[in-house]
Amino acid sequence: MDSLFTSPEFQMSLLLFVALGGYLIASRINQSAVIGLILVGIVVGPSVLGWITYTDFVAGLAHLGAVILLFVIGLEFNLKDILSARNGIIAAVGVIIPWIGGYWLSLLFGYDTPSAIFIGTALTATSIAITANVLKELGKLQTEAAKAIIGAAVIDDVLSLLALAISTDVVSGTVTAGGIAIVAIKAIAFIVIAGAFGLLVVSRFMERLDKTPFAEKYPEFIFIFAMMMAFLYAMLAELVGLSAIVGAFIAGVSFEGVRLYRSKSLKEGAEYLQIIFAAIFFVSLGILADFHALTPEIVGFLIALTAVAIITKVVGCGVPARISGLCTKDALIVGFGMAPRGEVAMIVALIGLETGIIGQGVYVTLVLMSLLTTLITPIVYRNWFYRREYCNYDKKGTYIEGGK
Amino acid sequence: MDSLFTSPEFQMSLLLFVALGGYLIASRINQSAVIGLILVGIVVGPSVLGWITYTDFVAGLAHLGAVILLFVIGLEFNLKDILSARNGIIAAVGVIIPWIGGYWLSLLFGYDTPSAIFIGTALTATSIAITANVLKELGKLQTEAAKAIIGAAVIDDVLSLLALAISTDVVSGTVTAGGIAIVAIKAIAFIVIAGAFGLLVVSRFMERLDKTPFAEKYPEFIFIFAMMMAFLYAMLAELVGLSAIVGAFIAGVSFEGVRLYRSKSLKEGAEYLQIIFAAIFFVSLGILADFHALTPEIVGFLIALTAVAIITKVVGCGVPARISGLCTKDALIVGFGMAPRGEVAMIVALIGLETGIIGQGVYVTLVLMSLLTTLITPIVYRNWFYRREYCNYDKKGTYIEGGK
Repeated sequence: MDSLFTSPEFQMSLLLFVALGGYLIASRINQSAVIGLILVGIVVGPSVLGWITYTDFVAGLAHLGAVILLFVIGLEFNLKDILSARNGIIAAVGVIIPWIGGYWLSLLFGYDTPSAIFIGTALTATSIAITANVLKELGKLQTEAAKAIIGAAVIDDVLSLLALAISTDVVSGTVTAGGIAIVAIKAIAFIVIAGAFGLLVVSRFMERLDKTPFAEKYPEFIFIFAMMMAFLYAMLAELVGLSAIVGAFIAGVSFEGVRLYRSKSLKEGAEYLQIIFAAIFFVSLGILADFHALTPEIVGFLIALTAVAIITKVVGCGVPARISGLCTKDALIVGFGMAPRGEVAMIVALIGLETGIIGQGVYVTLVLMSLLTTLITPIVYRNWFYRREYCNYDKKGTYIEGGK
Repeated sequence: MDSLFTSPEFQMSLLLFVALGGYLIASRINQSAVIGLILVGIVVGPSVLGWITYTDFVAGLAHLGAVILLFVIGLEFNLKDILSARNGIIAAVGVIIPWIGGYWLSLLFGYDTPSAIFIGTALTATSIAITANVLKELGKLQTEAAKAIIGAAVIDDVLSLLALAISTDVVSGTVTAGGIAIVAIKAIAFIVIAGAFGLLVVSRFMERLDKTPFAEKYPEFIFIFAMMMAFLYAMLAELVGLSAIVGAFIAGVSFEGVRLYRSKSLKEGAEYLQIIFAAIFFVSLGILADFHALTPEIVGFLIALTAVAIITKVVGCGVPARISGLCTKDALIVGFGMAPRGEVAMIVALIGLETGIIGQGVYVTLVLMSLLTTLITPIVYRNWFYRREYCNYDKKGTYIEGGK
């Protein structure tokens, strides 16, 4: 009986059941499905009910979900959308300002310099998973603001990785320009080579294979191949020190132009996988946050740190976005879109905890800060910037053309 | 670095990479993809290269794959196709004859009575996963023979469960008519109640929900709901002692008639999930078979047992099929279609090993017997019964209308 409740069937069934609850909550409070999924994760996780623990299998499925989600989002973009001077500046300023803000606040709250350096670093990374999914839900992925967010977030991830390498070196007292350069070169080389290889070799290979009788005999082959490439790129990204989801995103971007006729559709198939596994990913973010570890003094620091995390990204990304030519509303959309730290900050926190630089208290603070910044974007988008889209139904559920 | 190679991204990427190799092998030897996938699993598993071990995560994904596969297959059938007197008779005779054959052969090879009873029981169960997938690949799921195979295999699973309960009782010396009746009643009650509930309540609920604005706002909701039900039914089937895949199949059958307009398609989505996860399931069947455990005397018994396993199903199912009105060719298709023991026999073997009734040698024999019976059906189908379908291309890959 015990083994039944740890069986994959049971865990999948429970996770999906919980995810359905997340949709109902989202609908009830009229928010994005992402918010509902994270909230329901908090409720069923150790914080409240304790129904689901973050087992290796759940963690594995959540990992797959993050990879599939970013692959699907990548399929909507091409490389030109991402690599622009504007995105580079938004990313750079949006890394420096939050780092200074986090460092300064930590010293103010009495933390030592190594902890302060690490907390600053945790504030630098943007998680594209949340924002991109909310924009996808709203049908806004092709707007100028969305392209700036996604592009800047990818560059941001590279810069955050650099910041992590530098701060680890500073804390251990081994800063070398060579070491920093190697990390940077590896990350940039991966993105350029993987992107070009995917675009010029893999995409063309898939299109050529699609024209053969083999593809007619096994129409699922190219779909399996593309998903294999997504996971392979995710793994290679981890190997060079980037986060796995950046690799999956690059795979998606490089396959964006692929047109298949005999084979199953990559995009359609990946979207169906995403529906199931991204839902599990968002629920698992909620499960990961254990509110029991909070003490009153940590709560004060947490609130201040979350405020700094949001304000520094809104300012640090919003101002460069405004200067580079976006209107004020779009610049604010970019600023808030860059605010979620998601799993990237959680990974930084975990490295800090494992190397002994930060303690359990700071670790929990960083995880919860990350979660709170993640919750703010869908709420702000939904209620301030993209209000009309959700107002196409009146209270009786009748559709109103053009919104009310 | 070590954790990278156990990361979910790496394992997925490797499994899918291996699956692609399976397709290439299948294409090269001109066989069903299932054969290629199992063969490549044997090659990368502990038997030959030892690249992939059957970790909990791989096992979990394979489980999900089996459930999704049977759900998708279920979506092609309705209850009337399954519950018929013909299918009942094919299943009943096809359980009794293999049991007698296995029992008799084991005594002949000098095994004791408890072992012989258990080996007989392992021969009774049919795994629909393999045959149904091969028929699906061949586009033959809607033939009369296919309906007889699928229907009889479901009934067969119930009877095998009974056989397992009875033989465990016989071996432990506690046969009671009451105990047997309870097992039977639970299994039959589950199938009837779950089928009726799915058909009359769940299907109608999904169709009604599809008409609401909620479904338009969250078109993925019903797809997640249906997959949740598939895993829930799989778990409930395990709870009453049936195999999980029977539950998933019942869920699929009961949702067969669902028509959705605003929501994402159940069938399309489940098929995309199946492409990825069923491939992993078939690869894992190959990984599970470790040929190292074979000794010369076991090989002799293995060959004899496999022959008995195939012949008793071909005769035990083919003769009733012929008598009940199918032509000889279709009766043989039914007989060979019922031959694969797949994971069902492997589960019986595991129970025998864990309860100490059989030793390691018999266990390995049963696992390999199960694998060999699984390989025979696609080969026989492909080369004898459905030859023309695969001959639509000449050696240069040019399509020949109507086959050559």
